[in-house]
Parts: sequence; structure tokens; C-alpha cells
Amino acid sequence: MPSRRELANAIRALSMDAVQQAKSGHPGAPMGMADIAEVLWNDHLRHNPANPDWWNRDRFVLSNGHGSMLLYSLLHLSGYDLGMEDIRRFRQLDSRTPGHPELGYTPGVETTTGPLGQGLANAVGMALAEKILAAQFNRPGHELVDHHTYCFAGDGCLMEGISHEACSLAGTLGLGKLIVFYDDNGISIDGKVEGWFTDNTPARFRAYGWHVIADVDGHDSEAIDAAIRKARQESDKPTLICCKTVIGFGAPNACGSHSVHGAPLGDDEIQATREFLKWDHGPFEVPDAVYEGWDARTAGAAAEEAWQRVHEDYRRAHPELAAEFDRRMQGALPASFAEHADDLIRKAAEDGASVASRKASEMALEGFGPYLPDLVGGSADLTGSNNTRWSGCTPVTAADGDGNYIFYGVREFAMTAIQNGIALHGGFIPYGGTFLVFSDYARNAVRMAALMGQRNVMVYTHDSIGLGEDGPTHQPVEHLASLRMIPRLSLWRPCDAVETVVAWRAAIERADGPTALVLSRQGLPHQERAPDQIDAIRRGGYVLRDSGSAPELILIATGAEVGLAVEAWEQLQSDGVAARVVSMPAVDVFEAQDEAYRESVLPAACDRRVAIEAASAEYWYRFVGPRGRVVGMHGFGESAPAGDLFRHFGFTVDNVLAQARAVLGH
Amino acid sequence: MPSRRELANAIRALSMDAVQQAKSGHPGAPMGMADIAEVLWNDHLRHNPANPDWWNRDRFVLSNGHGSMLLYSLLHLSGYDLGMEDIRRFRQLDSRTPGHPELGYTPGVETTTGPLGQGLANAVGMALAEKILAAQFNRPGHELVDHHTYCFAGDGCLMEGISHEACSLAGTLGLGKLIVFYDDNGISIDGKVEGWFTDNTPARFRAYGWHVIADVDGHDSEAIDAAIRKARQESDKPTLICCKTVIGFGAPNACGSHSVHGAPLGDDEIQATREFLKWDHGPFEVPDAVYEGWDARTAGAAAEEAWQRVHEDYRRAHPELAAEFDRRMQGALPASFAEHADDLIRKAAEDGASVASRKASEMALEGFGPYLPDLVGGSADLTGSNNTRWSGCTPVTAADGDGNYIFYGVREFAMTAIQNGIALHGGFIPYGGTFLVFSDYARNAVRMAALMGQRNVMVYTHDSIGLGEDGPTHQPVEHLASLRMIPRLSLWRPCDAVETVVAWRAAIERADGPTALVLSRQGLPHQERAPDQIDAIRRGGYVLRDSGSAPELILIATGAEVGLAVEAWEQLQSDGVAARVVSMPAVDVFEAQDEAYRESVLPAACDRRVAIEAASAEYWYRFVGPRGRVVGMHGFGESAPAGDLFRHFGFTVDNVLAQARAVLGH
Repeated sequence: MPSRRELANAIRALSMDAVQQAKSGHPGAPMGMADIAEVLWNDHLRHNPANPDWWNRDRFVLSNGHGSMLLYSLLHLSGYDLGMEDIRRFRQLDSRTPGHPELGYTPGVETTTGPLGQGLANAVGMALAEKILAAQFNRPGHELVDHHTYCFAGDGCLMEGISHEACSLAGTLGLGKLIVFYDDNGISIDGKVEGWFTDNTPARFRAYGWHVIADVDGHDSEAIDAAIRKARQESDKPTLICCKTVIGFGAPNACGSHSVHGAPLGDDEIQATREFLKWDHGPFEVPDAVYEGWDARTAGAAAEEAWQRVHEDYRRAHPELAAEFDRRMQGALPASFAEHADDLIRKAAEDGASVASRKASEMALEGFGPYLPDLVGGSADLTGSNNTRWSGCTPVTAADGDGNYIFYGVREFAMTAIQNGIALHGGFIPYGGTFLVFSDYARNAVRMAALMGQRNVMVYTHDSIGLGEDGPTHQPVEHLASLRMIPRLSLWRPCDAVETVVAWRAAIERADGPTALVLSRQGLPHQERAPDQIDAIRRGGYVLRDSGSAPELILIATGAEVGLAVEAWEQLQSDGVAARVVSMPAVDVFEAQDEAYRESVLPAACDRRVAIEAASAEYWYRFVGPRGRVVGMHGFGESAPAGDLFRHFGFTVDNVLAQARAVLGH
Repeated sequence: MPSRRELANAIRALSMDAVQQAKSGHPGAPMGMADIAEVLWNDHLRHNPANPDWWNRDRFVLSNGHGSMLLYSLLHLSGYDLGMEDIRRFRQLDSRTPGHPELGYTPGVETTTGPLGQGLANAVGMALAEKILAAQFNRPGHELVDHHTYCFAGDGCLMEGISHEACSLAGTLGLGKLIVFYDDNGISIDGKVEGWFTDNTPARFRAYGWHVIADVDGHDSEAIDAAIRKARQESDKPTLICCKTVIGFGAPNACGSHSVHGAPLGDDEIQATREFLKWDHGPFEVPDAVYEGWDARTAGAAAEEAWQRVHEDYRRAHPELAAEFDRRMQGALPASFAEHADDLIRKAAEDGASVASRKASEMALEGFGPYLPDLVGGSADLTGSNNTRWSGCTPVTAADGDGNYIFYGVREFAMTAIQNGIALHGGFIPYGGTFLVFSDYARNAVRMAALMGQRNVMVYTHDSIGLGEDGPTHQPVEHLASLRMIPRLSLWRPCDAVETVVAWRAAIERADGPTALVLSRQGLPHQERAPDQIDAIRRGGYVLRDSGSAPELILIATGAEVGLAVEAWEQLQSDGVAARVVSMPAVDVFEAQDEAYRESVLPAACDRRVAIEAASAEYWYRFVGPRGRVVGMHGFGESAPAGDLFRHFGFTVDNVLAQARAVLGH
């Protein structure tokens, strides 16, 4: 049987060889953390390589994602469907071993990491999901949900602000099954961190209420094992295990310096490393005994089988709960969901409430919530403003995980990344609120939700200068356009309560990607619609008002400005202009419709167009074309009552009519 | 003489009355922090209300900017040019008292605050600027630069991740003249923070190496005064003074609860507060004795005069240094700057180097740096990749402020907000590097730089899929378009070393706003130009290649894709197509040119256009119009060598030609 060090050296060898072959990559972290990973994976991690989707597996997150070869080595060695041919194709097009771990590319990769700090926040989300799910489903004698979340993080992760947000909240919420390993190697890309990172990290995390195990030698397997045991015994606090390591351990000349962080070692140093480690095997060669030492398939299958028996017992004792648990973990909606949604839309149309769309969103939540226990909501300390807390909400606390609402505090970035972690864990549809302008703070987590295709619903209220007196720091201008630029993010800006219910429905039904719901602070008038128009809302853009004949002018508007377009349309009608109003709550959804539908809404023949949106005018020129005009924003807002601002910036019926007449050449 | 409490009550009364009159705003923080502010402003702050621009004034930053009435009250009471008529117009259009403090609107407002945590980071930047400037200019016996930076921050600021980034770095850099007051009132918008914010904040800041004064009663003037004295004695570490306060202090029924945070008190509670505080004056009435107690004009004038004598002595002893100090603080460029810049551009054109634009940026810094000691650079732990450290750089450390390079660590958001603080302080042109994709992390600070019109240069390298193997987490796609949407931000994406020098020059000469320099990782070919073309680069878009006749096709490209456009153009030329290549390094600058120039570059008559940029295709449709095409990105990137990716995503001469032919109908 190979020694622990020999097992760990397999990671070192694979990592340095793969990086060398790719001519790029990061050998330092995999070589430095190999001993820690070996102890964790071989002695503690409960997982089944044959079924990476086993619901109750321990989650493992490599927050320092540049060390991807560490994870690929672990997956390969422990028996996942990731062969040596995959390792050899590290960082190549269409390989299963991209430069950073990417969800969906590689069996066993739990989340896409690389943007520092976010993996850590994802891990907090996973541990939080486990806590809530366990509280919701476990019953006396039935520990159906019971797993740990392990996370590796480096100096970079801990320097990032999101680590503060996420770890502070993890402490408050008492996430006792979260165990984080800090790779304290004293090196970041610019060199020795002592010039820019001198935190007393154990003291910092104790200040967050964490259980901290300091001063662990990250190359001493017994010390690592003892630390993990201690961490697993602590059930009320998350644990940080601070491991002193040598970056690039095993490379006799390069180790301990930033030169080993992000570049191949080179042939000479690789040779020297082989000698230093006494690793007498060629590149991409792993001896059978080492494979045997790593093979987790038998133990993994047994672990899952044991859990299947727990699941079976549970199913017998609590058949309805078990069915609900299975549905939730499958990410399926309740069978009655579509019917309920149809009802809610019909009801909203009948009620015809004229309310702020943030209020309409709360009403939608009141409608969907009772039928959708999957929802777990929250807000970054703007609950009353974002209207995210519907009447069925119960807060999740350290003492009691049996809730569905999280007070995230003023932590927009962590909130969004934690929501990603909750979605990745499974069993929930997370949503969270902040002001649209502060989507900036969370922006890269929004991008990661899109890149990973996670069902994460972002509730962005106070969506324009319409928020009024708080002024330009709080008034989004460029945010609509720039969120629309994020690939695979769906964005809805509904114009009334009916569109808001449809938008929520779309967000919930969109199982493979995130949705931003952009909502007004101010009240919005109800729009009357025929049944086919109500049905057309889901297509993202549709004809809301029309004249009998082919339109000579099209007004395109979204959200709060649709009412303005309709008022202008009424005037145009009485002036004898054949005008059309297109409501375009979701540009991305409209653009995904077939050509014929799009042409029916925006006929190419009608190039006299005016777009109206209280946001970057620039965005809309591609819809109105060279002959069109845009009533939009051309700079930042101002502090004043909303009505004054709308007049000041030209969001008036008179100005829309003036632009329309200019476009028509009247 | 009124008591301290009576002086402080003037803030409370003005704040509650102004919020009531505006029917919106935040009375809680001003009323809670009034006693702290009274001690600081009346006994410690060195400032001159008659000259808010006095270079050596203490800086005061209200990071919890929603408490703007606190600051407006202080400015009004202490004698700044801010009358009661301004206070009465709180939050109204065109007033000098907008909802959040805004730079340039109100004399004495040092920075725009409201987005939480950023004021704190600005304050770190101001204190850092003071430290560096003092080290650069002070001489034995001449303490020319010597002031404190004071900052008020609330729970929200300390929950935000940027507080971690900025305060951790402030500790490492030993910013002994930074004094932060934590308004520990236990309340945020969602209620009592104990449900979401349980940090041991004193322990957290001690872990950052700060001097922490815990448990100060924020309503005990003597305790506050003693704490400030202690803080001013500590010169090696920043100080955090933790003040226990009651939010809305003085409002007998509403105080201590979130209801007082962000809404008017209402007539009844205002009446009760007047009684509780024994403030027997009408709304917007302040007795003369209270004004006298606050008046800082005499002391302020004396303080500035004393400093003017220091400056005069300094000028006599070190005339050249004094002249340079004055120039730097005025924000003027050296007299020879334009000449040097012309030389550098000419030389770059002659050299014709084909290098990555990040390398060209380093070369430009080598050229500008020796003549521009105003530059203070840095990187968020990507120094070698961002090429931000030119040969004249010396790191700033805790022990030695006499440098011009800051190792920011992995802290993109704080870096950008600290740069804002450095620019706001004066004396410097800050620049800082990260990968373009991580502009996301800093995005709201980029926005704040634009909103405040600060000269802050963001160096964004690794600007497309061209970075290769690091994959989609590191490959920007939507970032170019979405940064271009931020009002007043200038963005340059140069195509070769010549355009890179011009871009740097534009960034340096742009005294009233920030600039993003977007640079390639990969090598770029030099483009030959005639002298008038070199001169035209500064116009943001120009004709780089043309045919003799009127163009029948225009290729528009930026940065790394210009070379591709030129190669395609050569093929089109030999095919007899009258094509033109427009290089468009700065869309915003081009759009600010006069109509005639724009028409000369992009004649409306030529609607056969192809745009080429390895970023969101969507952005370019407004330039190519309905008949045009875009060779761009329609989703996220992939992990692979750059050459493979360019082929995979269609950035090839063949594809550009195919699109060109399609546009031409060939």
C-alpha cells in the first residue's frame, strides 16, 4: 500500500505534467494542497464516483479554481468518469478539463470557480441549503439530509470582499457543516503576501463566530486528519482550518515562490521534482497501487446504498414528504404549477390592480408561494423596499433552519453567490432582492449564475430615476442595457401586475438559467388586454395597442414607460396616426421567438419607431434603426421627486409625441 | 454658551425638519451621530469653511451617505456657503442638498457617498494619498502635508465586502492618520442587526492591524473627545472608534428602531422630539448662540493662514519642490507634457513595435512616467500580467510612503474606490490594473468615478477570448459594451502600440473623468499610418485603410480585431471591392466629435458595414444598421489556446470576408 505522501504525489505529478503539456496553468496550488486533499478525499469525503449527482453527497468546492488540476486529479484518481485522455487534454478545446473547473463539463465538479471568493460563497450557499433542507425534511429517526460542504480557499479568496460578506453571514447562521481549508502559503501572484495581506486570519474568522483551527501543518497528514475530525465534531459553527503549506511543494527549486503559481515548471524542474518526490513514473503514468489507494468507487457505492436505505425507510414512514423531497431535488415543479400559474395570470388580469411592480411582485409571490415550497427568498437588507417577504415567509436562523427567508444583510455580492450555491445544491428556487443599481455590487455573481445556467431569481426594484429623491447614486441608468448584455441571463421589466405575474412564472419555469426581475418603486397603471394579448406576454414582446391598419409608427416601451407610450398612442389615435404600442418586457425572450412572430410585432416595413425606456438611450437604437428616435437617458439622474425628474428628463406624453412627430416628419 | 448637547441638537432639529419637509430622507443616522459629529467638528477637525479647497484641510467622509442631513447641517452650522434656503430645499431638483452627498453640488462635500462601503474606501484612498504626498514633499522642519482623514461608517458599510478589502489594506499600509467612527446602533433597514450581523467588529479590525477603541458611548461627549485624542496619538495604525449610539436619538418614541432610519418622523413625533430635546425653536430656526457655538470660520481662517506660513517657508527653502507641489495639487500637467506626448507618439510610430497592447501600455508608462511623478499605480495582484509596474516604480509600504506603486492585493473593488479617494484628495493621477472580466467586481466604483468626474485610469488587460486557456470565467464578453454604457466613462481599446500611447495620453489629459484602457494579452501587429492618421487617433475613430473611391463597404473594428479587418481589407482590395477600415478605439470619443467629422469617417450613404470585435455582437448593430453584420461574440467563451478560440468563434479573415460578401450581396 502506498504511503499517504505517495498518494498525494500522484496529484503533484499529474498537475505538473498536465500544465506542462498545456503550456499553461497553475501547478502551485495543486502541489501545495495535495496532502490536505488526500486526507480529505480518502478519509472523510462521502461521495460516489459512479453517481456524481447523489443527492446526499458531501459537496467539495475548489474556490481557488485556478488550481483546477487538483480537482481533476482527485476526480480521475478516485474513479470518476474522467480518464487519462481527459487529463492529457487539459485546457484544450472541447475537453472535459478546462482551465478552470466548469459545471457541466466534468463529472464531479460542483460549481464553476475561478473568480476568487465566489466558490467560498457558493459553499456557504450549499451548506445553508443543506441546513434548510434538513430542517424541512428530516424527521425523528430519519436523517435524510445530512452531509458536509468542504471548501478549499487561498489567499486570494480571503482578500476578496465577498469572503467577508459570505463568511460573516455563515457565522451568524451557524453553518456547522461547512468546513473551509485556508491554504496559507504566503504567496499570491505578485509575490510574498506580507506586503499586501497581513490579516490575522484566525482572529478575523473568530470575530465572525467561526470555529477556527489554526496552525495546521498542511503537509502533515495526521495533523490534517485530526483537524478534520475536530471540525466534524463542531455542529454549531462553521470551521476554518488554517493550513500552512508550501506552494508548489515537491518542486525543489521553484516551491515557495510565486513563480510556481501560474506557469509550467519547465522540463528541468519537472525532472528535479520527480527525483525529489521519488516519483519514478513517466508523464501521465500512475502505478496501479496508487490507483488502488485512491479508488473510492466501492466505498462510494456503499455510502450511497446506505443512504438509499435511509431514503427507503423515510419513504415508508413519510411517503408524501418523500415524494416532495424527490420532486424538489429533481428540480421539477409541482404537477399543479402550470394550472395555478394560469389562474394567477387570469386573476391578475381580472383584478386590474394599478400598483408598483415591486408590489405586484409581492402579490405574485403571495400567489405562487403557497404552492411552491421550493422558494427560498431574501433581501440584502431591503426587505420592505424590495417586497420580497410574502406572508408565508419564516426567517432562517442559526437556531432554526426550518424557514424560507434569509436576511442577507447589506451583502449583495455574497447574497447572489450564495443563491448560486443554494441552486447548485438543489431542492430550492432561490430569489433575492436589492435595488437595481446595486446589481453592480453583485455583477460577477450574476454572470456566474448565467454561465452555470442556474435558476436564480434576482429581484431588482427601484428600477429608474422613478425612485426619486435618493438621486443618481441610487438611480440605475446603464444597468438595464448592461444586464441585457450578459449572455443567458433573462431580464424582465414588466409594465403592470399582469406582466409581473407572467415574468415571475417565466423565472420559475426557466430551469436552466437565471432571471432578473426589474421592478418599479412607483405605481403603474393596469393595461387592458384581450386574452390573446395576455397569452403573448410570455413571448417577451407583443402588440399591446394597435390601429386597424398597418402601423405607420411603432412605439416600443418597457416597464414603467409602457403607460406613457399608451397615453401617447391615445393622442396619436385621435390625431389619425396609425400607431402601434409594443410592450417589450423581456428583450431576450422576444429575440428568441421565431422570425415570423418577431416580424408580426415589429414589421421591417415600418421603420418609423420610437423607443421609450428610462435608461440608456443607446441600447435602443438597434431596435428603432437609423430613422427612429429614443426617449431615454443620456447621462446620470438627479435628486428630486420622481414627477419632477420625469418632466426634467423628458418622460412626458408631450415629448413622446414630439419625437413621434419628428420621426413621422410631421 | 450652549451646551454640547444643545449644539448637537441643532443637527437633530435640522435633520428631522428637512426630511419632514422633503417627505423623504433618513433622520436616524444624523440624530444618532450628532453628538459624535459635534465633538469632532468643533474640537478636532481642521478645516476652513471659507475655502473648502484648502489643500491641507482634514478630510471628512460620510460613508453612510444616506445620513446626508448630518453633513449638510454641519456645513451649514459651521459657516460654509450653504444657507438655510439650501437646507429647506433638501432633495429638490437643482438644490445644493441632494438626497445623498454629491461632489460638486455642495461646498465641503469631499466625495459622493450612498453606495455603502465606498466612502470608507475613498477615505482609505485619501489617507493613503496624504501619506504618499507627505513622504514625497515634506522636508525636515517643513510639515507641508499633514492632515487627518475622518470617516463615519454604519453597520451597512461594515457588512459590505469592500470594507474588508479597504480596511485590511489600510492596516497593512499603516495609515495612522485615518480615523473611522463606527456608528454601532444595532439597526439596519430590516431591523435589529443581530439576526444578520453578529461580527465582533473590534476583534475583526484588530485582526487587520488597526488600533481599535471599543465601547465608546456615542452620546457621551467627553468619552468621544478622549477617544479622538487617543486616535490622533496613534501614528502607525488606522483607528476605529466603535461608538454605541441610539439611532434617531432624541425622538422619544421612534428612536432605537428601524422605523426612524429612512422615513420622516411625522408631525407628532417631531413635536415630541422638540419637547424631549427641549428645542424650543420653530422648523429651520437656529438661535444665534447655537450658530456662534458652531461657527468655524475664524478658527478655520487662522488654521489655513498658519498653513500658508508653512507653505511660504517651504517655498523659500525648496522653491522647485513647492512649485511642483502647487502644480500637482492644482491637477495641472507639467508644462512640457504635450511636447513629451507628441514625441512619444512619433517615436511609437517610428518604432512600429508589434507587441501586446498590455506591453505597449507598459512602454507608454515608461515614456510618460519620468515626466509625470503624479502617477501612482498599482494592480490587484496581477502586476506582471497587467504590465502596470514600469521601471521607475517604488512600492509604497507601511514603513515608507515615498513610493508610487501600490500592491493592492486581490481587491479590485477597493482598489478602484481607493483610486477614487486618491484622485479626490489631489496631487496624483492614480491608475490600477486587473483583468477586464474583473471590472465586474469593481463596477460600482467605476460608476462612482464617472459620476464624480474623477481622473482615475483603469488598466484592464486580457480583454477577450484572446486570453485563451483560462476559459469563460476569465474571458470578458459583455464587458466592453457594458462599460461603454456607463455615462462619462471614457473607454479606449487600442489596436497597436501607437494607439496605446494616444490612449494613455487621452486618459492623462482627461482631467474631469475616468478612463478605462482595455488591452490585449496577445501580440498585435503594428499598423502603418500617415501623419494625419496618427493625429486622427485622438478623435476616437478614424479611417485606417481606404480605397481611392467612395467606400462601398466599411469594416469597423477595435483593438485586437483591427489587424483582422486590415487583412480582410487587403483581400477585398485585390478583389476590387472599394472597402474602408475604420479603427474605433474609443467609441465615446468618436461620438463626441462634430457631425461633419463623423460623417467623413462613417458616411451615411454607405450602409454596407461589418463590425468586428471579440465581444458582444449586440452592441455594434447600431453602427452597422439593419443591412450590416457583426463578427462578434454571441455567448460565453471556452477554454483553449487563443488561436483555436479565434477560429472556433469565427474571428478569421475568411469569416470576415464571408460576412462582407453577404453584406454586399455577392
